[in-house]
Amino acid sequence: MADNILIPRLTIIGVGLIGGSLALALKQAGAVGEVVGCGRGKPNLEKALELGVIDRYERDPAAAVRGADVVFLATPVKTLGTVTSQCLPGLKAGAIITDGGSVKEEVARVIEPLLPADIHFVPGHPIAGTENSGAEAAFPELYRGKRTILTPTVNTAKHAYELIRQMWQTVGSEVVEMSLEKHDKVLAAISHLPHMVAYSLVNAVGSYDHYEENILEYSASGFRDFTRIASSDPTMWRDIAETNRVALLEMVGQFEKSLAELKDDIATGNGDKLFEFFLRSKQLRDAIL
Amino acid sequence: MADNILIPRLTIIGVGLIGGSLALALKQAGAVGEVVGCGRGKPNLEKALELGVIDRYERDPAAAVRGADVVFLATPVKTLGTVTSQCLPGLKAGAIITDGGSVKEEVARVIEPLLPADIHFVPGHPIAGTENSGAEAAFPELYRGKRTILTPTVNTAKHAYELIRQMWQTVGSEVVEMSLEKHDKVLAAISHLPHMVAYSLVNAVGSYDHYEENILEYSASGFRDFTRIASSDPTMWRDIAETNRVALLEMVGQFEKSLAELKDDIATGNGDKLFEFFLRSKQLRDAIL
Repeated sequence: MADNILIPRLTIIGVGLIGGSLALALKQAGAVGEVVGCGRGKPNLEKALELGVIDRYERDPAAAVRGADVVFLATPVKTLGTVTSQCLPGLKAGAIITDGGSVKEEVARVIEPLLPADIHFVPGHPIAGTENSGAEAAFPELYRGKRTILTPTVNTAKHAYELIRQMWQTVGSEVVEMSLEKHDKVLAAISHLPHMVAYSLVNAVGSYDHYEENILEYSASGFRDFTRIASSDPTMWRDIAETNRVALLEMVGQFEKSLAELKDDIATGNGDKLFEFFLRSKQLRDAIL
Repeated sequence: MADNILIPRLTIIGVGLIGGSLALALKQAGAVGEVVGCGRGKPNLEKALELGVIDRYERDPAAAVRGADVVFLATPVKTLGTVTSQCLPGLKAGAIITDGGSVKEEVARVIEPLLPADIHFVPGHPIAGTENSGAEAAFPELYRGKRTILTPTVNTAKHAYELIRQMWQTVGSEVVEMSLEKHDKVLAAISHLPHMVAYSLVNAVGSYDHYEENILEYSASGFRDFTRIASSDPTMWRDIAETNRVALLEMVGQFEKSLAELKDDIATGNGDKLFEFFLRSKQLRDAIL
Protein backbone atom coordinates (compact mmCIF):
# COMPACT_ATOMS: atom_id res chain seq x y z
CA MET A 1 0.00 0.00 0.00
CA ALA A 2 2.93 2.34 0.59
CA ASP A 3 3.20 2.80 -3.18
CA ASN A 4 -0.24 4.41 -3.25
CA ILE A 5 0.55 7.07 -0.71
CA LEU A 6 -0.18 10.41 -2.30
CA ILE A 7 0.04 12.52 0.85
CA PRO A 8 2.40 11.34 3.63
CA ARG A 9 0.98 13.80 6.15
CA LEU A 10 -2.38 15.56 5.83
CA THR A 11 -3.71 18.17 8.23
CA ILE A 12 -7.45 18.85 8.34
CA ILE A 13 -8.44 22.19 9.84
CA GLY A 14 -12.12 21.78 10.70
CA VAL A 15 -12.86 18.09 11.17
CA GLY A 16 -16.55 18.11 10.25
CA LEU A 17 -18.58 16.55 7.46
CA ILE A 18 -16.40 17.98 4.66
CA GLY A 19 -12.95 17.66 6.23
CA GLY A 20 -13.65 14.38 8.01
CA SER A 21 -15.11 12.70 4.92
CA LEU A 22 -12.01 13.62 2.90
CA ALA A 23 -9.78 12.09 5.60
CA LEU A 24 -11.84 8.89 5.77
CA ALA A 25 -11.93 8.48 1.98
CA LEU A 26 -8.17 9.01 1.59
CA LYS A 27 -7.54 6.53 4.41
CA GLN A 28 -9.83 3.99 2.81
CA ALA A 29 -7.90 4.38 -0.47
CA GLY A 30 -4.56 4.00 1.34
CA ALA A 31 -3.59 7.36 -0.16
CA VAL A 32 -2.61 9.13 3.05
CA GLY A 33 0.00 8.48 5.73
CA GLU A 34 -0.87 10.36 8.92
CA VAL A 35 -3.95 12.56 9.37
CA VAL A 36 -3.71 15.37 11.92
CA GLY A 37 -6.85 17.21 12.97
CA CYS A 38 -7.34 20.72 14.28
CA GLY A 39 -10.41 22.82 15.08
CA ARG A 40 -12.08 24.82 17.82
CA GLY A 41 -14.01 22.09 19.59
CA LYS A 42 -12.10 19.55 21.69
CA PRO A 43 -15.11 17.18 22.08
CA ASN A 44 -15.43 17.04 18.29
CA LEU A 45 -11.69 16.30 17.91
CA GLU A 46 -11.89 13.56 20.55
CA LYS A 47 -14.85 12.08 18.68
CA ALA A 48 -12.93 12.26 15.38
CA LEU A 49 -10.02 10.44 17.01
CA GLU A 50 -12.30 7.78 18.46
CA LEU A 51 -13.98 7.24 15.07
CA GLY A 52 -10.63 6.94 13.29
CA VAL A 53 -11.26 10.02 11.17
CA ILE A 54 -7.92 11.45 12.35
CA ASP A 55 -4.81 9.84 13.87
CA ARG A 56 -4.07 12.65 16.32
CA TYR A 57 -4.96 16.26 16.90
CA GLU A 58 -3.41 19.54 17.97
CA ARG A 59 -5.31 22.51 19.36
CA ASP A 60 -2.89 25.04 17.84
CA PRO A 61 -3.04 25.39 14.03
CA ALA A 62 0.73 26.02 13.70
CA ALA A 63 1.45 22.81 15.65
CA ALA A 64 -1.17 20.90 13.65
CA VAL A 65 0.37 21.73 10.27
CA ARG A 66 3.99 21.02 11.27
CA GLY A 67 5.45 18.62 8.72
CA ALA A 68 2.21 18.46 6.73
CA ASP A 69 2.46 17.96 2.97
CA VAL A 70 -1.14 19.05 2.42
CA VAL A 71 -3.36 21.22 4.63
CA PHE A 72 -7.09 21.10 3.95
CA LEU A 73 -9.03 24.09 5.27
CA ALA A 74 -12.64 23.14 5.96
CA THR A 75 -13.86 25.93 8.24
CA PRO A 76 -16.49 28.59 7.31
CA VAL A 77 -15.50 30.85 4.41
CA LYS A 78 -14.95 34.02 6.44
CA THR A 79 -12.54 32.28 8.84
CA LEU A 80 -10.15 31.05 6.13
CA GLY A 81 -7.86 34.11 6.13
CA THR A 82 -7.40 34.03 9.90
CA VAL A 83 -6.91 30.27 9.92
CA THR A 84 -4.24 30.55 7.20
CA SER A 85 -2.38 33.19 9.21
CA GLN A 86 -2.45 30.93 12.27
CA CYS A 87 -1.04 28.03 10.24
CA LEU A 88 1.82 29.99 8.65
CA PRO A 89 4.41 29.71 11.47
CA GLY A 90 4.21 25.90 11.35
CA LEU A 91 4.18 25.24 7.60
CA LYS A 92 7.19 23.58 6.01
CA ALA A 93 8.61 24.79 2.69
CA GLY A 94 6.70 23.23 -0.18
CA ALA A 95 3.51 22.64 1.82
CA ILE A 96 0.29 22.83 -0.17
CA ILE A 97 -2.82 24.49 1.26
CA THR A 98 -6.20 23.79 -0.31
CA ASP A 99 -9.73 24.53 0.87
CA GLY A 100 -13.35 23.49 0.47
CA GLY A 101 -14.98 26.93 0.64
CA SER A 102 -18.22 27.63 -1.25
CA VAL A 103 -16.94 30.99 -2.52
CA LYS A 104 -13.63 31.23 -4.35
CA GLU A 105 -12.82 34.78 -5.52
CA GLU A 106 -12.89 36.26 -2.00
CA VAL A 107 -11.05 33.28 -0.52
CA ALA A 108 -8.21 33.54 -3.05
CA ARG A 109 -8.08 37.33 -2.64
CA VAL A 110 -7.63 36.94 1.14
CA ILE A 111 -5.31 33.92 1.29
CA GLU A 112 -2.86 34.42 -1.59
CA PRO A 113 -1.26 37.67 -0.33
CA LEU A 114 -0.54 35.98 3.03
CA LEU A 115 1.65 33.23 1.57
CA PRO A 116 5.43 33.17 1.03
CA ALA A 117 6.65 31.86 -2.34
CA ASP A 118 7.41 28.35 -1.04
CA ILE A 119 3.88 27.72 0.26
CA HIS A 120 1.33 26.78 -2.41
CA PHE A 121 -2.39 27.38 -2.47
CA VAL A 122 -4.97 25.55 -4.62
CA PRO A 123 -8.48 26.99 -4.19
CA GLY A 124 -11.12 24.26 -4.45
CA HIS A 125 -14.71 23.37 -3.78
CA PRO A 126 -16.13 19.84 -3.56
CA ILE A 127 -19.83 20.03 -4.51
CA ALA A 128 -21.12 17.65 -1.90
CA GLY A 129 -22.73 17.78 1.51
CA THR A 130 -25.62 16.73 3.64
CA GLU A 131 -27.68 18.59 6.25
CA ASN A 132 -25.52 17.05 8.99
CA SER A 133 -22.34 18.44 10.49
CA GLY A 134 -19.50 17.46 12.82
CA ALA A 135 -16.99 14.60 12.73
CA GLU A 136 -19.76 12.07 13.39
CA ALA A 137 -21.45 13.05 10.12
CA ALA A 138 -18.34 12.22 8.07
CA PHE A 139 -18.38 9.16 5.78
CA PRO A 140 -15.87 8.01 3.13
CA GLU A 141 -18.39 7.86 0.24
CA LEU A 142 -19.42 11.53 0.44
CA TYR A 143 -17.43 12.59 -2.64
CA ARG A 144 -18.00 9.50 -4.77
CA GLY A 145 -19.62 10.41 -8.07
CA LYS A 146 -19.67 14.11 -7.14
CA ARG A 147 -17.84 17.03 -8.75
CA THR A 148 -15.03 19.04 -7.27
CA ILE A 149 -14.30 22.41 -8.84
CA LEU A 150 -10.69 23.60 -8.68
CA THR A 151 -10.05 27.26 -9.43
CA PRO A 152 -6.31 27.77 -10.01
CA THR A 153 -5.05 31.36 -10.28
CA VAL A 154 -1.98 32.82 -12.00
CA ASN A 155 -0.12 32.08 -8.76
CA THR A 156 -1.04 28.40 -8.50
CA ALA A 157 1.96 26.06 -8.98
CA LYS A 158 1.31 23.36 -11.57
CA HIS A 159 2.59 20.50 -9.38
CA ALA A 160 0.44 21.61 -6.45
CA TYR A 161 -2.65 21.74 -8.65
CA GLU A 162 -1.86 18.23 -9.97
CA LEU A 163 -1.54 16.76 -6.49
CA ILE A 164 -4.85 18.24 -5.32
CA ARG A 165 -6.54 17.11 -8.54
CA GLN A 166 -5.29 13.55 -7.87
CA MET A 167 -6.44 13.79 -4.25
CA TRP A 168 -10.04 14.52 -5.28
CA GLN A 169 -10.00 11.89 -8.00
CA THR A 170 -8.74 9.36 -5.45
CA VAL A 171 -11.85 9.90 -3.31
CA GLY A 172 -14.10 9.33 -6.32
CA SER A 173 -14.79 12.88 -7.39
CA GLU A 174 -14.77 14.25 -10.95
CA VAL A 175 -12.51 17.31 -11.07
CA VAL A 176 -13.56 20.34 -13.11
CA GLU A 177 -11.32 23.36 -13.64
CA MET A 178 -12.90 26.80 -13.66
CA SER A 179 -11.92 30.42 -13.11
CA LEU A 180 -12.62 31.90 -9.67
CA GLU A 181 -15.17 34.25 -11.20
CA LYS A 182 -17.01 31.54 -13.12
CA HIS A 183 -17.13 29.31 -10.06
CA ASP A 184 -18.75 32.04 -8.02
CA LYS A 185 -21.35 32.80 -10.71
CA VAL A 186 -22.22 29.16 -11.30
CA LEU A 187 -22.54 28.50 -7.57
CA ALA A 188 -24.58 31.67 -7.10
CA ALA A 189 -27.03 30.25 -9.63
CA ILE A 190 -27.28 26.60 -8.65
CA SER A 191 -26.71 26.80 -4.92
CA HIS A 192 -26.59 30.24 -3.33
CA LEU A 193 -29.74 31.62 -5.02
CA PRO A 194 -31.83 28.51 -4.21
CA HIS A 195 -30.84 28.81 -0.55
CA MET A 196 -31.82 32.50 -0.47
CA VAL A 197 -35.14 31.62 -2.11
CA ALA A 198 -35.82 28.79 0.35
CA TYR A 199 -34.99 30.98 3.35
CA SER A 200 -37.24 33.77 1.97
CA LEU A 201 -40.07 31.37 1.22
CA VAL A 202 -40.15 29.86 4.70
CA ASN A 203 -39.87 33.33 6.17
CA ALA A 204 -42.76 34.68 4.06
CA VAL A 205 -45.07 31.73 4.71
CA GLY A 206 -44.13 31.34 8.37
CA SER A 207 -44.56 35.05 9.06
CA TYR A 208 -47.99 35.20 7.45
CA ASP A 209 -50.00 35.55 10.66
CA HIS A 210 -53.33 36.23 9.03
CA TYR A 211 -54.73 33.27 10.99
CA GLU A 212 -54.40 32.35 14.62
CA GLU A 213 -52.87 28.99 13.83
CA ASN A 214 -49.55 28.13 12.24
CA ILE A 215 -50.42 27.38 8.63
CA LEU A 216 -47.07 25.62 8.15
CA GLU A 217 -48.73 22.71 9.96
CA TYR A 218 -50.78 22.04 6.85
CA SER A 219 -47.71 21.71 4.69
CA ALA A 220 -47.49 18.43 2.83
CA SER A 221 -44.33 16.58 1.88
CA GLY A 222 -43.82 18.80 -1.18
CA PHE A 223 -43.32 21.88 0.97
CA ARG A 224 -41.06 20.00 3.37
CA ASP A 225 -38.82 18.70 0.56
CA PHE A 226 -38.80 22.07 -1.13
CA THR A 227 -37.72 23.93 1.99
CA ARG A 228 -35.29 21.37 3.43
CA ILE A 229 -32.33 23.57 2.49
CA ALA A 230 -33.74 26.37 4.68
CA SER A 231 -32.59 24.21 7.62
CA SER A 232 -28.94 24.79 6.65
CA ASP A 233 -26.46 26.42 9.00
CA PRO A 234 -27.12 30.20 9.31
CA THR A 235 -23.44 31.03 9.95
CA MET A 236 -22.27 29.27 6.81
CA TRP A 237 -24.90 31.02 4.73
CA ARG A 238 -24.24 34.43 6.25
CA ASP A 239 -20.60 34.00 5.20
CA ILE A 240 -21.56 32.95 1.68
CA ALA A 241 -24.06 35.81 1.28
CA GLU A 242 -21.39 38.26 2.44
CA THR A 243 -18.51 36.93 0.36
CA ASN A 244 -20.32 36.18 -2.92
CA ARG A 245 -22.38 39.36 -2.79
CA VAL A 246 -22.01 40.57 -6.38
CA ALA A 247 -22.70 37.29 -8.17
CA LEU A 248 -25.51 36.47 -5.76
CA LEU A 249 -27.23 39.85 -6.20
CA GLU A 250 -27.08 39.38 -9.97
CA MET A 251 -28.80 35.99 -9.73
CA VAL A 252 -31.40 37.26 -7.25
CA GLY A 253 -32.14 39.96 -9.84
CA GLN A 254 -32.54 37.33 -12.58
CA PHE A 255 -34.89 35.38 -10.36
CA GLU A 256 -36.94 38.47 -9.47
CA LYS A 257 -37.40 39.17 -13.18
CA SER A 258 -38.53 35.61 -13.80
CA LEU A 259 -41.00 35.74 -10.91
CA ALA A 260 -42.29 39.16 -11.98
CA GLU A 261 -43.02 37.78 -15.45
CA LEU A 262 -44.95 34.89 -13.93
CA LYS A 263 -46.79 37.24 -11.57
CA ASP A 264 -47.91 39.37 -14.52
CA ASP A 265 -49.25 36.29 -16.29
CA ILE A 266 -51.15 35.27 -13.14
CA ALA A 267 -52.53 38.80 -12.68
CA THR A 268 -53.77 39.02 -16.28
CA GLY A 269 -54.97 35.39 -16.28
CA ASN A 270 -52.94 34.63 -19.40
CA GLY A 271 -53.43 30.85 -19.51
CA ASP A 272 -51.35 30.26 -22.64
CA LYS A 273 -48.35 32.13 -21.24
CA LEU A 274 -48.72 30.41 -17.86
CA PHE A 275 -48.75 27.03 -19.56
CA GLU A 276 -45.66 27.91 -21.65
CA PHE A 277 -43.81 29.18 -18.56
CA PHE A 278 -44.55 26.03 -16.54
CA LEU A 279 -43.78 23.74 -19.48
CA ARG A 280 -40.45 25.44 -20.15
CA SER A 281 -39.43 25.09 -16.51
CA LYS A 282 -40.57 21.48 -16.41
CA GLN A 283 -38.48 20.69 -19.50
CA LEU A 284 -35.39 22.40 -18.05
CA ARG A 285 -35.89 20.55 -14.76
CA ASP A 286 -36.59 17.15 -16.32
CA ALA A 287 -33.37 17.47 -18.37
CA ILE A 288 -31.26 17.36 -15.18
CA LEU A 289 -33.07 14.42 -13.57
CA MET B 1 -67.90 -7.22 5.14
CA ALA B 2 -71.27 -6.02 3.78
CA ASP B 3 -71.83 -4.19 7.06
CA ASN B 4 -68.90 -1.93 6.35
CA ILE B 5 -70.18 -0.70 3.03
CA LEU B 6 -70.32 3.07 3.17
CA ILE B 7 -70.86 3.68 -0.55
CA PRO B 8 -72.76 1.01 -2.52
CA ARG B 9 -71.81 2.54 -5.88
CA LEU B 10 -68.96 5.02 -6.42
CA THR B 11 -68.16 6.71 -9.71
CA ILE B 12 -64.68 8.13 -10.23
CA ILE B 13 -64.41 10.75 -12.97
CA GLY B 14 -60.68 10.91 -13.76
CA VAL B 15 -59.11 7.59 -12.81
CA GLY B 16 -55.57 8.81 -12.13
CA LEU B 17 -53.38 8.98 -9.04
CA ILE B 18 -55.96 10.85 -6.93
CA GLY B 19 -59.17 9.14 -8.10
CA GLY B 20 -57.62 5.70 -8.48
CA SER B 21 -55.99 5.74 -5.05
CA LEU B 22 -59.31 6.63 -3.39
CA ALA B 23 -61.00 3.70 -5.20
CA LEU B 24 -58.25 1.25 -4.20
CA ALA B 25 -58.25 2.39 -0.56
CA LEU B 26 -62.05 2.14 -0.23
CA LYS B 27 -61.97 -1.32 -1.83
CA GLN B 28 -59.22 -2.43 0.53
CA ALA B 29 -61.34 -1.25 3.48
CA GLY B 30 -64.40 -3.05 2.10
CA ALA B 31 -66.18 0.29 2.22
CA VAL B 32 -67.39 0.41 -1.36
CA GLY B 33 -69.64 -1.82 -3.46
CA GLU B 34 -69.10 -1.19 -7.17
CA VAL B 35 -66.60 1.31 -8.56
CA VAL B 36 -67.35 2.77 -12.01
CA GLY B 37 -64.65 4.71 -13.83
CA CYS B 38 -64.91 7.47 -16.42
CA GLY B 39 -62.35 9.70 -18.13
CA ARG B 40 -61.10 10.79 -21.50
CA GLY B 41 -58.50 8.13 -22.17
CA LYS B 42 -59.67 4.62 -23.02
CA PRO B 43 -56.20 3.04 -22.59
CA ASN B 44 -56.04 4.47 -19.05
CA LEU B 45 -59.53 3.10 -18.24
CA GLU B 46 -58.57 -0.32 -19.63
CA LYS B 47 -55.45 -0.24 -17.48
CA ALA B 48 -57.51 0.76 -14.41
CA LEU B 49 -59.86 -2.17 -15.06
CA GLU B 50 -56.95 -4.58 -15.47
CA LEU B 51 -55.36 -3.36 -12.22
CA GLY B 52 -58.64 -3.71 -10.31
CA VAL B 53 -58.83 0.02 -9.59
CA ILE B 54 -62.36 0.07 -11.07
CA ASP B 55 -64.92 -2.67 -11.70
CA ARG B 56 -66.17 -1.28 -15.02
CA TYR B 57 -66.10 1.92 -17.01
CA GLU B 58 -68.31 4.05 -19.18
CA ARG B 59 -67.08 6.61 -21.72
CA ASP B 60 -70.08 8.90 -21.18
CA PRO B 61 -70.20 10.74 -17.80
CA ALA B 62 -74.03 10.56 -17.58
CA ALA B 63 -73.88 6.77 -18.09
CA ALA B 64 -71.00 6.45 -15.64
CA VAL B 65 -72.84 8.17 -12.78
CA ARG B 66 -76.14 6.30 -13.26
CA GLY B 67 -77.16 4.82 -9.91
CA ALA B 68 -74.05 6.20 -8.17
CA ASP B 69 -74.35 7.16 -4.50
CA VAL B 70 -71.14 9.18 -4.59
CA VAL B 71 -69.37 10.74 -7.57
CA PHE B 72 -65.73 11.77 -7.06
CA LEU B 73 -64.49 14.36 -9.53
CA ALA B 74 -60.72 14.07 -9.96
CA THR B 75 -60.08 15.94 -13.20
CA PRO B 76 -58.16 19.28 -13.51
CA VAL B 77 -59.79 22.19 -11.66
CA LYS B 78 -60.94 24.10 -14.74
CA THR B 79 -62.78 21.07 -16.17
CA LEU B 80 -64.94 20.48 -13.08
CA GLY B 81 -67.86 22.69 -14.17
CA THR B 82 -68.12 21.04 -17.59
CA VAL B 83 -67.74 17.56 -16.11
CA THR B 84 -70.53 18.27 -13.60
CA SER B 85 -72.85 19.42 -16.39
CA GLN B 86 -72.11 16.23 -18.32
CA CYS B 87 -72.92 14.09 -15.26
CA LEU B 88 -76.23 15.82 -14.43
CA PRO B 89 -78.54 13.88 -16.79
CA GLY B 90 -77.47 10.58 -15.22
CA LEU B 91 -77.49 11.44 -11.53
CA LYS B 92 -80.11 9.90 -9.26
CA ALA B 93 -81.92 11.95 -6.62
CA GLY B 94 -79.83 12.12 -3.45
CA ALA B 95 -76.51 11.54 -5.21
CA ILE B 96 -73.51 13.22 -3.61
CA ILE B 97 -70.79 14.85 -5.70
CA THR B 98 -67.43 15.61 -4.15
CA ASP B 99 -64.12 16.63 -5.70
CA GLY B 100 -60.37 16.70 -5.10
CA GLY B 101 -59.57 20.07 -6.67
CA SER B 102 -56.67 22.16 -5.32
CA VAL B 103 -58.75 25.37 -5.41
CA LYS B 104 -62.11 25.54 -3.68
CA GLU B 105 -63.77 28.95 -3.94
CA GLU B 106 -63.86 28.94 -7.74
CA VAL B 107 -64.91 25.27 -7.88
CA ALA B 108 -67.85 25.84 -5.52
CA ARG B 109 -68.80 29.04 -7.38
CA VAL B 110 -68.99 27.12 -10.67
CA ILE B 111 -70.55 23.83 -9.52
CA GLU B 112 -73.19 24.83 -6.96
CA PRO B 113 -75.43 26.86 -9.31
CA LEU B 114 -75.58 23.88 -11.70
CA LEU B 115 -77.15 21.49 -9.18
CA PRO B 116 -80.83 20.79 -8.51
CA ALA B 117 -81.88 20.66 -4.84
CA ASP B 118 -81.76 16.86 -4.62
CA ILE B 119 -78.10 16.57 -5.73
CA HIS B 120 -75.55 17.37 -3.03
CA PHE B 121 -72.05 18.79 -3.38
CA VAL B 122 -69.24 18.58 -0.82
CA PRO B 123 -66.13 20.51 -1.94
CA GLY B 124 -62.96 18.77 -0.76
CA HIS B 125 -59.21 18.54 -1.17
CA PRO B 126 -57.04 15.65 -0.07
CA ILE B 127 -53.52 17.03 0.55
CA ALA B 128 -51.59 14.18 -0.99
CA GLY B 129 -49.90 13.37 -4.24
CA THR B 130 -46.75 12.24 -5.94
CA GLU B 131 -45.05 13.34 -9.15
CA ASN B 132 -46.66 10.42 -10.98
CA SER B 133 -50.00 10.34 -12.76
CA GLY B 134 -52.43 7.91 -14.38
CA ALA B 135 -54.22 4.81 -13.07
CA GLU B 136 -50.91 2.95 -12.83
CA ALA B 137 -49.65 5.48 -10.27
CA ALA B 138 -52.59 4.82 -7.91
CA PHE B 139 -51.97 2.98 -4.62
CA PRO B 140 -54.24 2.43 -1.61
CA GLU B 141 -51.91 4.00 0.97
CA LEU B 142 -51.73 7.43 -0.68
CA TYR B 143 -54.06 9.11 1.84
CA ARG B 144 -52.90 7.32 4.96
CA GLY B 145 -51.70 9.80 7.58
CA LYS B 146 -52.44 12.75 5.27
CA ARG B 147 -54.96 15.55 5.72
CA THR B 148 -58.10 16.12 3.70
CA ILE B 149 -59.65 19.56 3.86
CA LEU B 150 -63.43 19.74 3.41
CA THR B 151 -64.93 23.15 2.73
CA PRO B 152 -68.71 22.99 3.22
CA THR B 153 -70.75 26.00 2.14
CA VAL B 154 -74.16 27.26 3.29
CA ASN B 155 -75.64 24.92 0.67
CA THR B 156 -73.90 21.74 1.84
CA ALA B 157 -76.28 19.15 3.31
CA LYS B 158 -75.15 17.89 6.71
CA HIS B 159 -75.67 14.20 5.89
CA ALA B 160 -73.68 14.55 2.64
CA TYR B 161 -70.80 16.23 4.50
CA GLU B 162 -70.82 13.43 7.11
CA LEU B 163 -70.65 10.69 4.49
CA ILE B 164 -67.71 12.32 2.68
CA ARG B 165 -65.96 12.92 5.99
CA GLN B 166 -66.33 9.23 6.83
CA MET B 167 -65.09 8.29 3.36
CA TRP B 168 -61.81 10.15 3.86
CA GLN B 169 -61.38 8.87 7.39
CA THR B 170 -61.90 5.33 6.10
CA VAL B 171 -58.90 5.70 3.76
CA GLY B 172 -56.71 6.88 6.65
CA SER B 173 -56.90 10.61 6.23
CA GLU B 174 -57.44 13.22 8.97
CA VAL B 175 -60.34 15.47 7.98
CA VAL B 176 -60.11 19.21 8.64
CA GLU B 177 -62.99 21.60 8.04
CA MET B 178 -62.24 25.03 6.66
CA SER B 179 -64.00 27.82 4.78
CA LEU B 180 -63.50 27.99 1.01
CA GLU B 181 -61.62 31.25 1.40
CA LYS B 182 -59.32 30.01 4.13
CA HIS B 183 -58.53 26.84 2.18
CA ASP B 184 -57.50 28.87 -0.84
CA LYS B 185 -55.27 31.18 1.21
CA VAL B 186 -53.61 28.36 3.14
CA LEU B 187 -52.98 26.38 -0.05
CA ALA B 188 -51.70 29.50 -1.81
CA ALA B 189 -49.11 29.78 0.97
CA ILE B 190 -47.99 26.20 1.48
CA SER B 191 -48.41 24.78 -2.03
CA HIS B 192 -49.25 27.21 -4.82
CA LEU B 193 -46.58 29.81 -3.94
CA PRO B 194 -43.79 27.20 -3.56
CA HIS B 195 -44.66 25.82 -7.00
CA MET B 196 -44.54 29.31 -8.56
CA VAL B 197 -41.19 29.92 -6.86
CA ALA B 198 -39.77 26.59 -8.06
CA TYR B 199 -40.93 27.17 -11.64
CA SER B 200 -39.44 30.71 -11.56
CA LEU B 201 -36.18 29.51 -10.07
CA VAL B 202 -35.60 26.82 -12.68
CA ASN B 203 -36.59 29.27 -15.37
CA ALA B 204 -34.18 31.95 -14.09
CA VAL B 205 -31.22 29.61 -13.65
CA GLY B 206 -31.88 27.62 -16.82
CA SER B 207 -32.25 30.75 -18.92
CA TYR B 208 -29.04 32.30 -17.66
CA ASP B 209 -27.03 31.82 -20.82
CA HIS B 210 -24.01 33.83 -19.76
CA TYR B 211 -21.90 30.75 -20.48
CA GLU B 212 -21.85 28.44 -23.46
CA GLU B 213 -22.60 25.41 -21.34
CA ASN B 214 -25.71 24.49 -19.39
CA ILE B 215 -24.85 25.43 -15.81
CA LEU B 216 -27.72 23.27 -14.53
CA GLU B 217 -25.35 20.35 -15.15
CA TYR B 218 -23.35 21.44 -12.12
CA SER B 219 -26.36 21.28 -9.85
CA ALA B 220 -25.93 19.03 -6.85
CA SER B 221 -28.61 17.03 -5.11
CA GLY B 222 -29.77 20.08 -3.12
CA PHE B 223 -30.85 21.89 -6.28
CA ARG B 224 -32.51 18.78 -7.63
CA ASP B 225 -34.52 18.20 -4.45
CA PHE B 226 -35.41 21.86 -4.21
CA THR B 227 -36.72 22.05 -7.76
CA ARG B 228 -38.42 18.65 -7.98
CA ILE B 229 -41.86 20.28 -7.84
CA ALA B 230 -41.03 22.26 -11.01
CA SER B 231 -41.50 18.93 -12.80
CA SER B 232 -45.23 18.98 -11.98
CA ASP B 233 -47.92 18.96 -14.66
CA PRO B 234 -48.12 22.38 -16.45
CA THR B 235 -51.85 22.01 -17.20
CA MET B 236 -52.73 21.40 -13.58
CA TRP B 237 -50.68 24.38 -12.45
CA ARG B 238 -52.03 26.68 -15.15
CA ASP B 239 -55.52 25.87 -13.86
CA ILE B 240 -54.52 26.52 -10.26
CA ALA B 241 -52.77 29.81 -11.11
CA GLU B 242 -55.85 30.94 -13.01
CA THR B 243 -58.45 29.89 -10.44
CA ASN B 244 -56.68 30.92 -7.23
CA ARG B 245 -55.39 34.18 -8.68
CA VAL B 246 -56.19 36.56 -5.84
CA ALA B 247 -54.84 34.51 -2.93
CA LEU B 248 -51.81 33.47 -4.96
CA LEU B 249 -50.94 37.05 -5.96
CA GLU B 250 -51.15 38.07 -2.30
CA MET B 251 -48.70 35.33 -1.30
CA VAL B 252 -46.34 36.10 -4.19
CA GLY B 253 -46.36 39.68 -2.88
CA GLN B 254 -45.50 38.50 0.65
CA PHE B 255 -42.66 36.42 -0.74
CA GLU B 256 -41.35 39.29 -2.87
CA LYS B 257 -41.23 41.48 0.24
CA SER B 258 -39.34 38.81 2.16
CA LEU B 259 -36.83 38.34 -0.66
CA ALA B 260 -36.41 42.12 -1.08
CA GLU B 261 -35.55 42.40 2.62
CA LEU B 262 -32.94 39.67 2.27
CA LYS B 263 -31.58 41.26 -0.92
CA ASP B 264 -31.11 44.57 0.91
CA ASP B 265 -29.18 42.82 3.68
CA ILE B 266 -26.97 41.11 1.09
CA ALA B 267 -26.39 44.39 -0.77
CA THR B 268 -25.39 46.27 2.38
CA GLY B 269 -23.42 43.32 3.74
CA ASN B 270 -25.37 43.38 7.00
CA GLY B 271 -24.02 40.18 8.56
CA ASP B 272 -26.06 40.38 11.76
CA LYS B 273 -29.33 40.85 9.91
CA LEU B 274 -28.43 38.07 7.45
CA PHE B 275 -27.72 35.71 10.33
CA GLU B 276 -31.01 36.62 12.04
CA PHE B 277 -32.96 36.14 8.81
CA PHE B 278 -31.43 32.70 8.15
CA LEU B 279 -31.80 31.63 11.77
CA ARG B 280 -35.46 32.65 11.91
CA SER B 281 -36.19 30.68 8.70
CA LYS B 282 -34.27 27.68 9.99
CA GLN B 283 -36.25 27.69 13.23
CA LEU B 284 -39.57 27.95 11.37
CA ARG B 285 -38.51 25.13 9.05
CA ASP B 286 -37.14 22.88 11.78
CA ALA B 287 -40.42 23.22 13.68
CA ILE B 288 -42.31 21.39 10.89
CA LEU B 289 -39.80 18.54 10.46
